[in-house]
Amino acid sequence: ASSAPAIAQSQPEIKWRLASSFPKTLDTIFASADVVGKRVAAATNGKFQIQTFSSGEIVPGNQVLDAVQNGTVQCGHTASYYYVGKDPTFAFGTAVPFGLNCRQFNAWWYAGGGDALMNEFYADYNVRGILCGNTGAQMGGWYRKEIKSLADLKGLKMRIPGFGGMVLAKLGVVPQQIAGGEIYSALEKGSIDAVEWVGPYDDEKLGFNKIVKNYYYPGWWEGGPALHLFVNNKAWSELPKDYQAVLEAACHEGNTMMMARYDAGNPQALKRLVAAGVRPKAFPKDVMDACYKATLEIFAENCAKNPKFKKVHDHVMPFRNDLITWMRFTENTFDDFMAGAKK
Amino acid sequence: ASSAPAIAQSQPEIKWRLASSFPKTLDTIFASADVVGKRVAAATNGKFQIQTFSSGEIVPGNQVLDAVQNGTVQCGHTASYYYVGKDPTFAFGTAVPFGLNCRQFNAWWYAGGGDALMNEFYADYNVRGILCGNTGAQMGGWYRKEIKSLADLKGLKMRIPGFGGMVLAKLGVVPQQIAGGEIYSALEKGSIDAVEWVGPYDDEKLGFNKIVKNYYYPGWWEGGPALHLFVNNKAWSELPKDYQAVLEAACHEGNTMMMARYDAGNPQALKRLVAAGVRPKAFPKDVMDACYKATLEIFAENCAKNPKFKKVHDHVMPFRNDLITWMRFTENTFDDFMAGAKK
Repeated sequence: ASSAPAIAQSQPEIKWRLASSFPKTLDTIFASADVVGKRVAAATNGKFQIQTFSSGEIVPGNQVLDAVQNGTVQCGHTASYYYVGKDPTFAFGTAVPFGLNCRQFNAWWYAGGGDALMNEFYADYNVRGILCGNTGAQMGGWYRKEIKSLADLKGLKMRIPGFGGMVLAKLGVVPQQIAGGEIYSALEKGSIDAVEWVGPYDDEKLGFNKIVKNYYYPGWWEGGPALHLFVNNKAWSELPKDYQAVLEAACHEGNTMMMARYDAGNPQALKRLVAAGVRPKAFPKDVMDACYKATLEIFAENCAKNPKFKKVHDHVMPFRNDLITWMRFTENTFDDFMAGAKK
Repeated sequence: ASSAPAIAQSQPEIKWRLASSFPKTLDTIFASADVVGKRVAAATNGKFQIQTFSSGEIVPGNQVLDAVQNGTVQCGHTASYYYVGKDPTFAFGTAVPFGLNCRQFNAWWYAGGGDALMNEFYADYNVRGILCGNTGAQMGGWYRKEIKSLADLKGLKMRIPGFGGMVLAKLGVVPQQIAGGEIYSALEKGSIDAVEWVGPYDDEKLGFNKIVKNYYYPGWWEGGPALHLFVNNKAWSELPKDYQAVLEAACHEGNTMMMARYDAGNPQALKRLVAAGVRPKAFPKDVMDACYKATLEIFAENCAKNPKFKKVHDHVMPFRNDLITWMRFTENTFDDFMAGAKK
């Protein structure tokens, strides 16, 4: 049987642990990691197994990058922008305010140079980022009082993390950092005035509509937030080439499936919410304009002091602008006609 | 060495031929098949090889389904709606006029039941359809004369295949079926008045702008045309389960990569076309409205006489309508703001 081991080694048994930043209750976003794990197992006759752990099982949801970086787990499913505290450049891996929508993000990442550029940045953290999921444009959140103009943002205590919170702080909002499990009670007790989460499908699960009815859009700070599978560089380099290829392809599936499931689930969830008395409202124009202006200021501040941030910013923004210009022609015109057509 | 063969059999050497409906010159759409082949080879240590043949090398581009159905090739990369002559239900696999955009198609296919529904239909042709590519909303084509109102469609000789041509025929257009390689000379000689192809990236290659300058949008008959890898059922059933899993994941990559590459390439191509004197114009409202009305009539006619068509129609249309309603809130509002923002 001397030749058997050599052949067997071409498909060695490998077990990885995956730390997710998300709880099992967020089935759409959490399940993307399982989509990857199932595909990888099926494509390797069960030889390459990836076990998914939900937020908190191994590390808290906002420390997944750290766990991958130091090798506690081989990989993690998380949002790059959770780590803006380390470097604001991380935001570009998920979403910056008034950034890319879902399709534009895929174009930038896969065919516009985004993958190479962000992985040059991620390499400093000993990880490789593989695109794996998108929520689409998120809603702008739940508000105790109506937002009728810019003045209504003054003093508003709102649960909103990251860059979006920094922009709103410029306009008088007092951003609150509250973990997922505690938001509902904070809103219920009135210790916060507003909260943003994801969109109808997930928001309905958390039940915010039982407390407030004003549901605003668009979530301009998250026009197409992308998620990644972060993989520890040493674990990656030790992975056989064919397993690497399988994992990358499986992440393509995880990426697409997450967006597809949100798109299939959100319309029905929104219908139920509206039936339960929720009132979707657009942010007033003066609020949108002021937020956009504040965002450009924050981009300029970060570009001035952070060369890594500037490098990605100066790459992605022209790409976004060109794609928006093109989409204004046939893509948006088609969508606009369909939105107005009697069906 | 008695145990070696059993292990080796778990990754047998398999070679498939893939017939593409597209010429190599259309690198974005043709290359999607190569994306799949490369990924499959990499994920199986080169054991599963898929060789791609361009349009005409084995069969003409519009006979790929037949070649897969009868086992001439194991698989083919093609557009389902090329085969509406066999049954108009095939159109739903790619695009019907005023149908799904790219993202909506993915949602319907992967998370809305479209995959199962269409494969129930494809089974009658001895093939399985795996989603593999999308061009996004196409342009509405090149016109010798301006289309200022519905009256300008009367007698217009236009190269436009399939359902779009059937709709336009109701409005006085005389649809022409002309293969890709002969369109340019037909337009140049004046034997046709108009031609639709894909979008700036591909259209620029064919050089229509050297003959005419009126470039209309949107291509309402192709709001998000999807492509498939059709696989012969016997070839599929003989494929090891792990190779099946690899192939499906690879098609996810082919699907996303095609859209990403078009999105990365179209903006620059449009810029070059406009710099060369091309004038992009929106179809007049009365033209759009009349085309939409004619489309609904054709849907009704087909539903009345074709139960297979009706089954898919009655499934996809409510799905589309719900998704459009949801997207009008946060997704379109975000896109609209970005389109108007000073960048």
